Amino acid sequence: MFTVQETGGDATSLSKDILLVFYTLPERKERIKEWMEHITNRFKGLKVRWVSAINPDHTIVKPTDLASDIWDGVTMLSTSTPPPAELIPNVRFVHVNSAGVDKWLNHPTYQNGNVLFSTSNGIHAPQIAEWVIGAWLSHQHIFMHYLSNMKTGTWEAPFAAAVNDSTGQRIGILGYGAIGRQCARLASALGLEIYAYTRRKRDAPESRKDDSYCVPGTGDPDGILPAKWFHGARKEVINEFLAQSLDLLVISLPLTPETRQIISEEQFEILSKNKTFVVNVARGGHINQDALQKALETGQIRGAAIDVTDPEPLPSEHPLWRAPNLLITPHVSWKADQVLDRHLDILELNLEKLATGKPLLNVVNRKLHY
Amino acid sequence: MFTVQETGGDATSLSKDILLVFYTLPERKERIKEWMEHITNRFKGLKVRWVSAINPDHTIVKPTDLASDIWDGVTMLSTSTPPPAELIPNVRFVHVNSAGVDKWLNHPTYQNGNVLFSTSNGIHAPQIAEWVIGAWLSHQHIFMHYLSNMKTGTWEAPFAAAVNDSTGQRIGILGYGAIGRQCARLASALGLEIYAYTRRKRDAPESRKDDSYCVPGTGDPDGILPAKWFHGARKEVINEFLAQSLDLLVISLPLTPETRQIISEEQFEILSKNKTFVVNVARGGHINQDALQKALETGQIRGAAIDVTDPEPLPSEHPLWRAPNLLITPHVSWKADQVLDRHLDILELNLEKLATGKPLLNVVNRKLHY
Repeated sequence: MFTVQETGGDATSLSKDILLVFYTLPERKERIKEWMEHITNRFKGLKVRWVSAINPDHTIVKPTDLASDIWDGVTMLSTSTPPPAELIPNVRFVHVNSAGVDKWLNHPTYQNGNVLFSTSNGIHAPQIAEWVIGAWLSHQHIFMHYLSNMKTGTWEAPFAAAVNDSTGQRIGILGYGAIGRQCARLASALGLEIYAYTRRKRDAPESRKDDSYCVPGTGDPDGILPAKWFHGARKEVINEFLAQSLDLLVISLPLTPETRQIISEEQFEILSKNKTFVVNVARGGHINQDALQKALETGQIRGAAIDVTDPEPLPSEHPLWRAPNLLITPHVSWKADQVLDRHLDILELNLEKLATGKPLLNVVNRKLHY
Repeated sequence: MFTVQETGGDATSLSKDILLVFYTLPERKERIKEWMEHITNRFKGLKVRWVSAINPDHTIVKPTDLASDIWDGVTMLSTSTPPPAELIPNVRFVHVNSAGVDKWLNHPTYQNGNVLFSTSNGIHAPQIAEWVIGAWLSHQHIFMHYLSNMKTGTWEAPFAAAVNDSTGQRIGILGYGAIGRQCARLASALGLEIYAYTRRKRDAPESRKDDSYCVPGTGDPDGILPAKWFHGARKEVINEFLAQSLDLLVISLPLTPETRQIISEEQFEILSKNKTFVVNVARGGHINQDALQKALETGQIRGAAIDVTDPEPLPSEHPLWRAPNLLITPHVSWKADQVLDRHLDILELNLEKLATGKPLLNVVNRKLHY
């Protein structure tokens, strides 16, 4: 059903720790084995257990499906799914294998301020930004229309459809974190003007930097690409941001009580002025889905692309599957073979920081929940 | 059927000239009128005739369809389609409304070295590069697969399909002109490594520059993005370039006798080592279509996207329409609303150069045919 591997057992500052990596990628066993050897050599005494969170038939293994001794003595945990708190009474460090901690908000372990939490924020930025820009370009260059023409062997007169390239258009990035910043890098190369929204005020150059994990050569770690910045949690600020004649809106925010249904009927009304193309790669809960459906059906927006829905999986009879000008993918934009390497990279960096008592990379702020 | 407008008639170095713009975009009449007034004010005496080359039903107007007096006295011509030489006995300057002069190679006016030729090279770079990268990302992120799942409301387990993001992958750009350079800018933002091929040797930094028309903020005018350069007309050089473990190959060359069927059975065999994704945005004649069909059907390459075929239109019964992992669009990648503004921009620049006796922008080299 799943593999358990354990290595290590010697003496350093992590010498009494047991790290359990409960991981949702079934492949590349050699790479994992190599990493476990490397880590247990580097941090003497640390024990590492690696358990696959995915069955051979691609279904997900629940934490409670695991034999109970796998949880015995675990002090450090890397996981996508929160286990019941009873399984991890001794945990002191949790690394969440995703960008957001929304699944943890009501979890006793998360509410215990003594447990350190970090996220995989940044490891998904290249592929998610590709998904965003790929969806935008597919829409702008009406690939779906031509794919449908291919079925009948129809060579359409090239003057039938109007197309705009991205130069001089404007992208609004709602949540200028790791993913938003790589969207900005791609958008900038396309000639789009970039408007950024962040929750916190970022008026000085120093405050515009982002210190989360960043794949070298990607993103906008210094925050130099936006032409204009917006900030604040109030609805008026969000609405003002959305009213900036955006051609493309990217939702790349963490889901918190504050940001739930941040795009609803009122906001689609604002976006209708420029028929903004809406992309959601964050969480389904950010959008009021009935309002999205209506916006697509009435042509308030030119189209949308969503990798997340509410609920997930989206039931097969849900009307959203049949909404016009919409691309839905099943929460896969984060997925790329490179994710494993980046996950191992960040996990090692944080073990080093724990061993030397330094602040963690991608540490979770327990008030802002990201 | 089509509109004729004529403005101008006064005195400068272009005072005896008659410019006929025979143009394939039916829209934005106000913008055209504005430009004609501006041009005839700026170049006193120049007469400008503007004729639409497109019928209201989107079919194309042939040069011989025009009333013969439209051709009377024309000394300057801007056109997509070459007219019979008899219609333009007094022409001294031809601006070709496309990036390539392949339609002109056997034309007496082109063979007359006294007639200056320039092209619209560069005005299509942003949108064609978008088309290229959009097709690449759609393929890499298997959008077609998910679009097909949408029809049945199928939310597929996210672990079923392997996806790679572009970081660390390699793009080979066969023809590093305006279009190739904007592909490079986008590819660079995605984290792809860039290998460039040019016909001429470009080993010194100065030689890597490109002086063709460039939309500000786009492209790679200084030629600083490629990690490696290849050059030469010999087949061995092309084959060596193709053997560089490319993940993505972009064909963005002019079509000349030298480059006809430059990608044929032998080259697909080379590309099969890395199952290179092949994109053609140049001319259908660059690829041996039977070899492409075979490469797709046998899985030699992971997929392809072509905006050009041989012949065009591709007949509706042609088997290529049904080849796997292929996107075909009907020679539309050049199309964007911004094309008109860029065309007017370049035409004005070249009128200025003609008036002041300076070398033309995008002048055609009559030995290399670009």
